[in-house]
Amino acid sequence: MADDRMTAHTADAQSIAQKCAYYMYERDEASQTLGIRIQTVSPGKCIVSMEVRQDMVNGLHTCHGGVVFSLADTAFAFACNSHNEATVAGSCTIDFILPVYVGDHLTASAETISQSTRIGTYLVKVTNQTDQLVAWFRGYAVRINRPVLPQE
Amino acid sequence: MADDRMTAHTADAQSIAQKCAYYMYERDEASQTLGIRIQTVSPGKCIVSMEVRQDMVNGLHTCHGGVVFSLADTAFAFACNSHNEATVAGSCTIDFILPVYVGDHLTASAETISQSTRIGTYLVKVTNQTDQLVAWFRGYAVRINRPVLPQE
Amino acid sequence: MADDRMTAHTADAQSIAQKCAYYMYERDEASQTLGIRIQTVSPGKCIVSMEVRQDMVNGLHTCHGGVVFSLADTAFAFACNSHNEATVAGSCTIDFILPVYVGDHLTASAETISQSTRIGTYLVKVTNQTDQLVAWFRGYAVRINRPVLPQE
Amino acid sequence: MADDRMTAHTADAQSIAQKCAYYMYERDEASQTLGIRIQTVSPGKCIVSMEVRQDMVNGLHTCHGGVVFSLADTAFAFACNSHNEATVAGSCTIDFILPVYVGDHLTASAETISQSTRIGTYLVKVTNQTDQLVAWFRGYAVRINRPVLPQE
Repeated sequence: MADDRMTAHTADAQSIAQKCAYYMYERDEASQTLGIRIQTVSPGKCIVSMEVRQDMVNGLHTCHGGVVFSLADTAFAFACNSHNEATVAGSCTIDFILPVYVGDHLTASAETISQSTRIGTYLVKVTNQTDQLVAWFRGYAVRINRPVLPQE
Repeated sequence: MADDRMTAHTADAQSIAQKCAYYMYERDEASQTLGIRIQTVSPGKCIVSMEVRQDMVNGLHTCHGGVVFSLADTAFAFACNSHNEATVAGSCTIDFILPVYVGDHLTASAETISQSTRIGTYLVKVTNQTDQLVAWFRGYAVRINRPVLPQE
Repeated sequence: MADDRMTAHTADAQSIAQKCAYYMYERDEASQTLGIRIQTVSPGKCIVSMEVRQDMVNGLHTCHGGVVFSLADTAFAFACNSHNEATVAGSCTIDFILPVYVGDHLTASAETISQSTRIGTYLVKVTNQTDQLVAWFRGYAVRINRPVLPQE
Repeated sequence: MADDRMTAHTADAQSIAQKCAYYMYERDEASQTLGIRIQTVSPGKCIVSMEVRQDMVNGLHTCHGGVVFSLADTAFAFACNSHNEATVAGSCTIDFILPVYVGDHLTASAETISQSTRIGTYLVKVTNQTDQLVAWFRGYAVRINRPVLPQE
């Protein structure tokens, strides 16, 4: 019985996480324009990926830091909004570890470090196609007291 | 005499700052794609601006944090590369203070807080068309031992 | 009349800022143990100072980063609690710019960058006795829905 | 043979890590004054612990953020100096997750996220006696081109 309820609860939380991510992704023209795709989403977690295109390079001809940040920030947004509590980024810190080049395939994997009623800390690791860590991102999330999904 | 030399030196530093920024900007397809324009550049400082377009919104229908970050990061990049010492972003922190909407005109103003031989801290303030502070960015810059401009 | 009211209001805010800071300082055994003294406090601002003692050095024989952070964090705490709204540090970032030595006299000056109903960003500059910037601190403050001062 | 060499190499790195940490700890009067003790140290990693004393509380009567930061910063310092390359903290970010009280037993566990020739990112988790995460710290390390240990 207890197990059944737990499974039901978990399945529900998983379903809500997916609904929230896809609801947001449909409206998220910035992420779509960058070619970001959701790989997996679950409560408090999300993995997204993208290819680095020629129109994403900066003046040193490596991938613009803003593009790497955008990928990490998108994974963070879907992770912290996965409980159907609308949440905004209060503050983010990113360390740029290795340069990223045109043609690289980047994956950003977000996980929850802590989440209270109002405030959360999330970690996002950005890796390239050879699984090297290229950036390390920490997001500070603030809930804004409304659901993500429209109320029926 | 002293004044003449100082003026010459200053004029030279200003000329180098502009050459570096425009050299980088020409190659910076990411910034161009976002519609970022250089307003002013001087040694250790840079102001850039852009309009928020419909293709820049996130899943909550405000401007994607990655776009605001990209604008700030571009101002930071041109400020910390203005001495013709190629410099990369080691680490950045951004606080998102007010939501940004489609049609907003954003300005990012970067200044030098400290710069040693190798390491620098920069502050970038991002404001909207009514001069409200929408984001506050701190960039940590690391020089990589080569010039920005190609050597003649 | 308008001017009188504004002055009254300002005087009141100033009085509250001082009451909050001294109320907190009396209880703040950590700051007292470090020899931190309040120089000035006003709504949203605070300046504190201290001398670097031999018992504050780290393994490289410069001042321990935790001591410099503590000074900045104290200035931040008194600045963000100056409106009689109890506020805690959610997140802080510090850049260590110059080494600090035994005998140095440090001053930390905190100012408000932004403050909404709930969330605030504060900047603290830490300088030494020759007015060199030795650290640059950004604090993210979260209000916790109770006053600082005991209610009469 | 290969295994023997690897073991020798590993044992050597381990021995250097311990020598560096204890050499620094002996000189680190700030950490000793706070009652910080080294639990374990290995190449790129360090665990330290301390008890929260009455003289460590702030004006809200919880542990001063600077004390929690100091503990994390000490673990970070011993981890990033464990390769006998003198390294200083360039920049640190800390998220304060749960309040800490007098009598709490805190443990800070530092690990290497990335380390290049010059620059490194380190993560430190601070937990209390019931293994709750109370703070989450990210340190950015810059090597300064000299050994930690005196040359014989």
